[in-house]
Amino acid sequence: MGEAETGAPVDVRLAELRDTIDAVDTRIVSLLAERQDVVRRVVALKKKHDLPVYHPDREEELIGQRRRQAREEDLDPDYLEDLYRRILRQSRVEQSARLARQGVRPGAAVLIVGGSGAMGRYFSRWFSEAGYRVRVLGRHDWPEVQALCSGIDLALVSVPIEVTDAVIRRLGPHLPPEAVLADLTSIKGPPMKAMIEAHQGPVVGLHPLFGPSTSTLDKQIIVFTPGRDLESCRWLLSQFAAWGSHILQSDPREHDDIMGIVQTLRHFATFAFGQFLWKKGVNLHRTLDFSSPIYRLELGMVGRLFAQDASLYCEIILASAERRSLLKEYLASLTGNLPMIDAGDKETFRSEFKKIAQWFGSFSEQAMRESTYLIDKLIERF
Amino acid sequence: MGEAETGAPVDVRLAELRDTIDAVDTRIVSLLAERQDVVRRVVALKKKHDLPVYHPDREEELIGQRRRQAREEDLDPDYLEDLYRRILRQSRVEQSARLARQGVRPGAAVLIVGGSGAMGRYFSRWFSEAGYRVRVLGRHDWPEVQALCSGIDLALVSVPIEVTDAVIRRLGPHLPPEAVLADLTSIKGPPMKAMIEAHQGPVVGLHPLFGPSTSTLDKQIIVFTPGRDLESCRWLLSQFAAWGSHILQSDPREHDDIMGIVQTLRHFATFAFGQFLWKKGVNLHRTLDFSSPIYRLELGMVGRLFAQDASLYCEIILASAERRSLLKEYLASLTGNLPMIDAGDKETFRSEFKKIAQWFGSFSEQAMRESTYLIDKLIERF
Repeated sequence: MGEAETGAPVDVRLAELRDTIDAVDTRIVSLLAERQDVVRRVVALKKKHDLPVYHPDREEELIGQRRRQAREEDLDPDYLEDLYRRILRQSRVEQSARLARQGVRPGAAVLIVGGSGAMGRYFSRWFSEAGYRVRVLGRHDWPEVQALCSGIDLALVSVPIEVTDAVIRRLGPHLPPEAVLADLTSIKGPPMKAMIEAHQGPVVGLHPLFGPSTSTLDKQIIVFTPGRDLESCRWLLSQFAAWGSHILQSDPREHDDIMGIVQTLRHFATFAFGQFLWKKGVNLHRTLDFSSPIYRLELGMVGRLFAQDASLYCEIILASAERRSLLKEYLASLTGNLPMIDAGDKETFRSEFKKIAQWFGSFSEQAMRESTYLIDKLIERF
Repeated sequence: MGEAETGAPVDVRLAELRDTIDAVDTRIVSLLAERQDVVRRVVALKKKHDLPVYHPDREEELIGQRRRQAREEDLDPDYLEDLYRRILRQSRVEQSARLARQGVRPGAAVLIVGGSGAMGRYFSRWFSEAGYRVRVLGRHDWPEVQALCSGIDLALVSVPIEVTDAVIRRLGPHLPPEAVLADLTSIKGPPMKAMIEAHQGPVVGLHPLFGPSTSTLDKQIIVFTPGRDLESCRWLLSQFAAWGSHILQSDPREHDDIMGIVQTLRHFATFAFGQFLWKKGVNLHRTLDFSSPIYRLELGMVGRLFAQDASLYCEIILASAERRSLLKEYLASLTGNLPMIDAGDKETFRSEFKKIAQWFGSFSEQAMRESTYLIDKLIERF
């Protein structure tokens, strides 16, 4: 090799260096496989002794060690941190998958009501893989409702928002009194009321803040609103936690207010933006040539909405009188900018901007940091 | 170790397994450092022989090899691909940084007009580090303009959009006839006209589609609009390419039309969303507790805007009569939804949604894929 460095033609020397890189890479991947094996042994040991799997402190300590080593070896510590965040995530996902296979209450009978919708199928799969006995009540299975409900430990209602109340009221009388009744609706007020009235046993409202295209439950948020006998519902919440979800307690009023902003308003704004692009006949692909990663991301959010189900968004946006009046307030607020736009009034824009910026306060800096990180990821990938 | 596995208490065995993981990690990081050394030797060799640095084919081949090895060693190939995309990006950034240090035309004199603004300082730094002799013409330096312009190879105008024309016309008479005149304004029509009229030598319009917070030029887009004597401007475009930027040719008309959508409309929509959150006094931090990664991302985009300069956005949004009339069309389109909202008319919503979805077509699927990837990254990190 020393000889080649001085004498051989450049293409031969390049080929040799590339072979060296390939050899290094082969060793790196083998070490990653070795690492995975050791992690599996840790998980097996912890499971056997009923110890918690995820240790945030251990993760941060490990990241710190690798950053220090990076500095010693003339590597960029941020680069190493990125790599190790990915490696640690893989090991969390792997661990949750292994726990999922066991389940918190394997063998329990779970009835998914509306199990043929996307979200119903999604949770059917999770419960089945965790060792639960899963039954499905589809819209044509009502003649069998009594048999399907017999001996179940959980009825999970996963139907379109506009029929949730009716389905709950129809289901209630057939449920064993000790079964947990839960729903997955994105509003919580009316379904909670319906569940409390239709069933005398344990009731909990659930709202998973993600869709069925999510590949892992790792760190995904599920909001729950206690209805009745929360203690008897604990195993279900523990199951979501074992799958890696973050469980957040709220009440129906707070939940629905916040969702008005987080879902209704945001989805409507996205819808209206896409609607305008369509009306203008904008050449999307050519705009992408010109696009900063942020525009790509924002246009991606619009495209993402229109890749999904019209009825789902229809219900989210127009579901209730409260939501519709929120949207009307929003339109009024937007239109309030018309005189400023008409006059090209920069003074008003700047003073309005500064008031809002002050109100956003420290949140803006956090947003800047997080989105800069994501933009880097976007550039890396596409 | 075999003994410990059967006999020792669980905490001792766990500690041993953790030590094993730490040892594996130490070897991984050392191999990454070794890899970096070999990559540096490749770059040095290529530079010496004037060979191109970036080889997309070689990268894809390398990813393919690691995916195959992953499958053989019982690792998730997607996981390995993620890690290697990050590793390869680091090596591209490293290579661009090393090329930047040399520069395409080191020693050439570059005058940054408006060099005390954020974007001016940003490019001052890049040119300085690449071995250019950088001078700055700030707003108080006009008495020295003749001396500052003497013998320069490039004048790069980086001033607020509302004064760009005036600055160009004031600068023009002092420029050496062979110097390249370029601007960084986010509109191209008026500045191009001003540059062509004010200067008799080479002219090129530039619009970097990123802000001064961007840590690397790697894969960042710079639009250029040829003005006069493009050949004499080539070295400047090559310099941006050497820094890793993607150079995109357009003309002022097309550029300004597309930017109306990509910037004006989008930024106004973001502004108006933040404005409404402020008016409603929404508790941002509590909404984040409830937020799916997508909402976090979208709210992040709003926060990001308000972390930046009011005047910059003011000019982007209200810069021209064309832009203001685009915004009025947009408001009219939004308000057109009022009857549907008032009536809770789901039929209209669904039919409108489906038409738009059809128009978005294959773009939606791409958006879904890309944003799902980003959402995973967001979850990994926060």
